[in-house]
Amino acid sequence: MADPRVLIIGAGLVGSSLGLALTRHGCDVVLSDQVGSHAVVAAGLGAGRVGLPAADEVDIVVVATPPAVIARIVADALHRFPTAVVTDVGSVKGTIIDEVQVLAPNLAARYVPSHPMAGSQYTGPLTASAALFVDRTWVVTPGPLNADEHVQQVVDLAERTGAHVVIMPAEQHDVAVAQVSHVPHLMSILTASHLRAVPGENLRLAGQGIRDVTRIAGSDPGLWRQIISANAEAIRGELDEVAEDLRYLLGVLDQPEKLEQFLGLGQAGAKALLVKHGAEPIDVHEVTVEIPDEPRALARLFTDIGDAGLNVEDFELRHDPVRQVGYLTILVEHERAEQFRDTLEHQGWVAASAARKG
Amino acid sequence: MADPRVLIIGAGLVGSSLGLALTRHGCDVVLSDQVGSHAVVAAGLGAGRVGLPAADEVDIVVVATPPAVIARIVADALHRFPTAVVTDVGSVKGTIIDEVQVLAPNLAARYVPSHPMAGSQYTGPLTASAALFVDRTWVVTPGPLNADEHVQQVVDLAERTGAHVVIMPAEQHDVAVAQVSHVPHLMSILTASHLRAVPGENLRLAGQGIRDVTRIAGSDPGLWRQIISANAEAIRGELDEVAEDLRYLLGVLDQPEKLEQFLGLGQAGAKALLVKHGAEPIDVHEVTVEIPDEPRALARLFTDIGDAGLNVEDFELRHDPVRQVGYLTILVEHERAEQFRDTLEHQGWVAASAARKG
Repeated sequence: MADPRVLIIGAGLVGSSLGLALTRHGCDVVLSDQVGSHAVVAAGLGAGRVGLPAADEVDIVVVATPPAVIARIVADALHRFPTAVVTDVGSVKGTIIDEVQVLAPNLAARYVPSHPMAGSQYTGPLTASAALFVDRTWVVTPGPLNADEHVQQVVDLAERTGAHVVIMPAEQHDVAVAQVSHVPHLMSILTASHLRAVPGENLRLAGQGIRDVTRIAGSDPGLWRQIISANAEAIRGELDEVAEDLRYLLGVLDQPEKLEQFLGLGQAGAKALLVKHGAEPIDVHEVTVEIPDEPRALARLFTDIGDAGLNVEDFELRHDPVRQVGYLTILVEHERAEQFRDTLEHQGWVAASAARKG
Repeated sequence: MADPRVLIIGAGLVGSSLGLALTRHGCDVVLSDQVGSHAVVAAGLGAGRVGLPAADEVDIVVVATPPAVIARIVADALHRFPTAVVTDVGSVKGTIIDEVQVLAPNLAARYVPSHPMAGSQYTGPLTASAALFVDRTWVVTPGPLNADEHVQQVVDLAERTGAHVVIMPAEQHDVAVAQVSHVPHLMSILTASHLRAVPGENLRLAGQGIRDVTRIAGSDPGLWRQIISANAEAIRGELDEVAEDLRYLLGVLDQPEKLEQFLGLGQAGAKALLVKHGAEPIDVHEVTVEIPDEPRALARLFTDIGDAGLNVEDFELRHDPVRQVGYLTILVEHERAEQFRDTLEHQGWVAASAARKG
């Protein structure tokens, strides 16, 4: 694909880093920021040149402003640059998509939403880095109105920065970021905010553990207010489940075996995060089978798996102590996954399968 | 004070690290472990020699076993070594003190409880380090029966490892560790355990933030079951407050101003951890330096920092498992930050600086 002419609106950490990465990869980048000095600093670092191009001088516009104003600036850009594809870097997609649809109903087909999963607790162009997106996930969430070639332009832009592109529906994206980003952020906030009740003398006993847990709580409250407000419904669903777990945990503080079981759920979760990203991509499928609360259910299941003659790569048994059910997740080569699931369902098990790229 | 003859019972991470540190500081160290191979491995690393000395060959006994058996082993040691001071490294003091009082009522005056605030998510002697305690807090919690000279022997031992000794009552210690260690651990567990409800596909969107929050959840559930059970009452009080905060947070998810205010409490808490004890919040800058994956890069960096003659307020070391690089974030007085960054860049380091109001 020819080197695109890019306009980046918003020269903060993400916009400036994007400008650095794209400039190094041959793009002509123009930077614009409401705070003029930000664009000047970013340009001084090599992230592009300051200015506002003419209507026909831009192939793609990237809106990298604070979340609350993204939709308005996307709509402006759709009007101002009638041949350009417009994308953004907002961390919540559904609310922006809805708002753009209202503000620019006839132009919204040229808006291809996206979200690079990169950033830091720092802000401003001085902390920008051309490597910010390298090996990070960049989610693109096209809708039914988007032309394939427009989606491809955004994917191409993201891949020039070294990011791995993931395409998923906006609704799934918003639930996923609630789960892996927004709820963890609020857990960090809850941990850090509880220190308001702790005497300074006791803080002397703080070690590395609490510093790790509370690091992201140090982020800008003004920015996170916008992110959380935009995704409040998805976050509420997840946070209700955490509240249920917390009630359970309070109930088993005095019951060492149940407590250890719950701590084990946490350990498994922490390890799942390490596995997914450290290892080489393995093309395996997960088949997850629900284990009913019946005598010898697990033994029967293993017998059925053996009878099916399958090459099981690995398996993991999880018991959910809160919800009183068990799950067996089996990793199988993807060629066999559907057949395996069908066989198990035929034998009366409740099973689901999903890709798991290592 | 003359170099003490030390017996360390329990050659796990903490016991072995202590053996390494004390051996280097001139002490005669004997190691004993129920798992013989642990003591042998620790001795092979230079943490002391394996054995069990005679009754009059020990000045101080350090019990570094799993928490649940500490009290019994302390009581045994008080009987077996009638002239030695006995201490331990347990992370909860009240329950151990009570139990020792029951098991060895006439000897308990020679037991001086202590707690080095050092460890990691790793276990076993192979991960031991002589530097584990350097600049960490080591709490000593003497009671009214302890002779001053016995307390001093434990303080001296702790200081030989490079730790900073804090003396406080056992009750205050147990509340403080509930606040700054045990509750943060459970918050990490709650965050990580919630991932059991997250499809593998959505985990691809996980970034560094959730990895930081969940790192300590990867710790051994068997060990943490013992720690939490021993301090359950103090933890319950704190965790009830967190549950109340969580209810409040759920209630203000849709109220941006109250939400931002709560996020600000979290930010303030995260920053309180950076303030030196007793000091006023300082107007500091963060200078972040990238550490390339090269032998001795960190040593070179610290040398360059030292050569620059800077007053470093605090620092934080992070390792990025994905990009295989590390980052050192250094807090410096803001007047010096730019000069510091320039000096480091001049020496060939990649560095950025940003304001961080304490």
